[in-house]
Amino acid sequence: MANANISDVAALAKVSVTTVSRVLNESASVSHKTRVKVQEAIETLNYKRSDLARGLRINETKTIGVIISNILNPFFTRMVRGIEDVSQNYNYNIVLCNTDEQPEKERKCLDMLLSKNVDGLIIAGTGGMNDYTRLENGFPTVFVDRRPDDKYKGRFDTVLVDNINGSAEAVEHLIDSGYKRIGVIAGSNESTTGYERFLGYKKALKNRGIPEDESLIKYGNFLGNMADQLTKELLEANCDSIFVTNNMIMLGVLEAVKKLGMRIPDDVGLVVFDDVEWMQYIQPSFTAVAQPTYQIGLTAMTVLMDRILNKNEEAPKEIVLPVSLIQRESSRKQNQSIV
Amino acid sequence: MANANISDVAALAKVSVTTVSRVLNESASVSHKTRVKVQEAIETLNYKRSDLARGLRINETKTIGVIISNILNPFFTRMVRGIEDVSQNYNYNIVLCNTDEQPEKERKCLDMLLSKNVDGLIIAGTGGMNDYTRLENGFPTVFVDRRPDDKYKGRFDTVLVDNINGSAEAVEHLIDSGYKRIGVIAGSNESTTGYERFLGYKKALKNRGIPEDESLIKYGNFLGNMADQLTKELLEANCDSIFVTNNMIMLGVLEAVKKLGMRIPDDVGLVVFDDVEWMQYIQPSFTAVAQPTYQIGLTAMTVLMDRILNKNEEAPKEIVLPVSLIQRESSRKQNQSIV
Repeated sequence: MANANISDVAALAKVSVTTVSRVLNESASVSHKTRVKVQEAIETLNYKRSDLARGLRINETKTIGVIISNILNPFFTRMVRGIEDVSQNYNYNIVLCNTDEQPEKERKCLDMLLSKNVDGLIIAGTGGMNDYTRLENGFPTVFVDRRPDDKYKGRFDTVLVDNINGSAEAVEHLIDSGYKRIGVIAGSNESTTGYERFLGYKKALKNRGIPEDESLIKYGNFLGNMADQLTKELLEANCDSIFVTNNMIMLGVLEAVKKLGMRIPDDVGLVVFDDVEWMQYIQPSFTAVAQPTYQIGLTAMTVLMDRILNKNEEAPKEIVLPVSLIQRESSRKQNQSIV
Repeated sequence: MANANISDVAALAKVSVTTVSRVLNESASVSHKTRVKVQEAIETLNYKRSDLARGLRINETKTIGVIISNILNPFFTRMVRGIEDVSQNYNYNIVLCNTDEQPEKERKCLDMLLSKNVDGLIIAGTGGMNDYTRLENGFPTVFVDRRPDDKYKGRFDTVLVDNINGSAEAVEHLIDSGYKRIGVIAGSNESTTGYERFLGYKKALKNRGIPEDESLIKYGNFLGNMADQLTKELLEANCDSIFVTNNMIMLGVLEAVKKLGMRIPDDVGLVVFDDVEWMQYIQPSFTAVAQPTYQIGLTAMTVLMDRILNKNEEAPKEIVLPVSLIQRESSRKQNQSIV
């Protein structure tokens, strides 16, 4: 069967092309009954929305919606700067919505941005909100930092970093620096970043022949809640170093270390995933896995504009950007010489 | 003359009430010619838009637009969290737009958010974009952190902190700690925060009978551009301490101090306006003027919702929240004892 177009959908649903377009644009002015009829026609004909995006889009607003999962995390705000610098070249506007890592807020952000007729979306998902089906029919969407649920595999452009290898390198570095009992505070397993960074930790232990010790593994979240408490528990379990899986968790780690009067790196060595600007200037400076944060935003927005403006119809792709370990003082034991 | 209402405006402009409403709501579907006619009628009749906001508003979207001047500055993102927590109580959505301290981007943000039919606005202005006239006729708007231009004095609700006294206290603390040559890196004078923090510096010198020294005064900006260079210039002018007027500038100061291998607080004492979470955990910890950042957002959004939902029509007010100096290690000279 040849690809259906919007007129076929309209004919089958017995509505006008404009009404189909309104349904596709999530316009509020379509009745529930009509919406269902149109959606049934779309499914019956296996209509792909890109037809619409290409020629018949009526509500172009030159606005891109960006959903970020924690506005307090400098990772996301720097990523937004990358998005914005590309958008300015194209004279597009950016509107942001923050979800605070709450799936319900993510759903609201998505509803709201679609109701504002954005031309495309960049989404750093919470991991817990896995309802992107209405975006599947060609609505220009790029996921960043975290993959959507496996059921959408291959359906959306995605820009990520190499979390597993970056984390493994960080933990191997701690081991090679002379630390013996390496703790980890993992982020939520619901997000692919949380899951993969934890996998990287396990991979490093395996690579170096160190058995896993459950008392050295703590499950936190990327907001950093409870990170001070989890740090105390790790230190009580005689951990001598910690792999901290994002910069928000690091604040709680520092709080606990300071309260306990311990010294970094001798009493406890630290490596953090995500290099925030201040970490290089402090004493001791932090060993960190540096992400190409700005580049993630820039890449995502470039991919999105290519979909929107050049009508690029290639299959969605996953772009994985490399990370790099920056060795500084927080992982340098005094009885070790590091070249 | 009795207060004109929207029907009077429509009659004088020879258009429908709906058209007047569209002009007031910044709808794109009104021709330039019609818009001018309506605006002339509004001016002739001295029509105040609050009539519309009170009863006839047709496009309520339960969305508030927030304009922030630098998304990389944690001050603004924490303020947004305060806004969001109030908005959630009322089931309102927040959309953000970032201006990067660029007046032209602020103008675009304002255009875009109004075109998205937000129900109200919270604006942390750039200081350089002073065209808020279209918001004056009762469009629910609260300015935060920075006052709009003097020409709008008394026209908008505004939530600020006490920059002058907070800065004066910080600089007096440096003097009282034994520092003699106190430098300052000021933010842009175009923003009231930049201007007032600099005034606070001057006030402290005057209070302590210390003459101003031009070589100890550097004009930077709140993005922190050039802050490392300005720090070097201050240190070359034999400054023994620096009052840093925001947290973004602090990063450049730290960079310069680290490059020059100087020690804080003995070679150079530091006090920063704005206390960011990490500053308390590092070694030496930073003496900082703590702003009620979250509270600013919370207060602004509460005032805005009162305007929108309770039709509060009192004259706009200015709310000035207090700041507090938190004395830590970066301003503690070793030859001084601080109680």
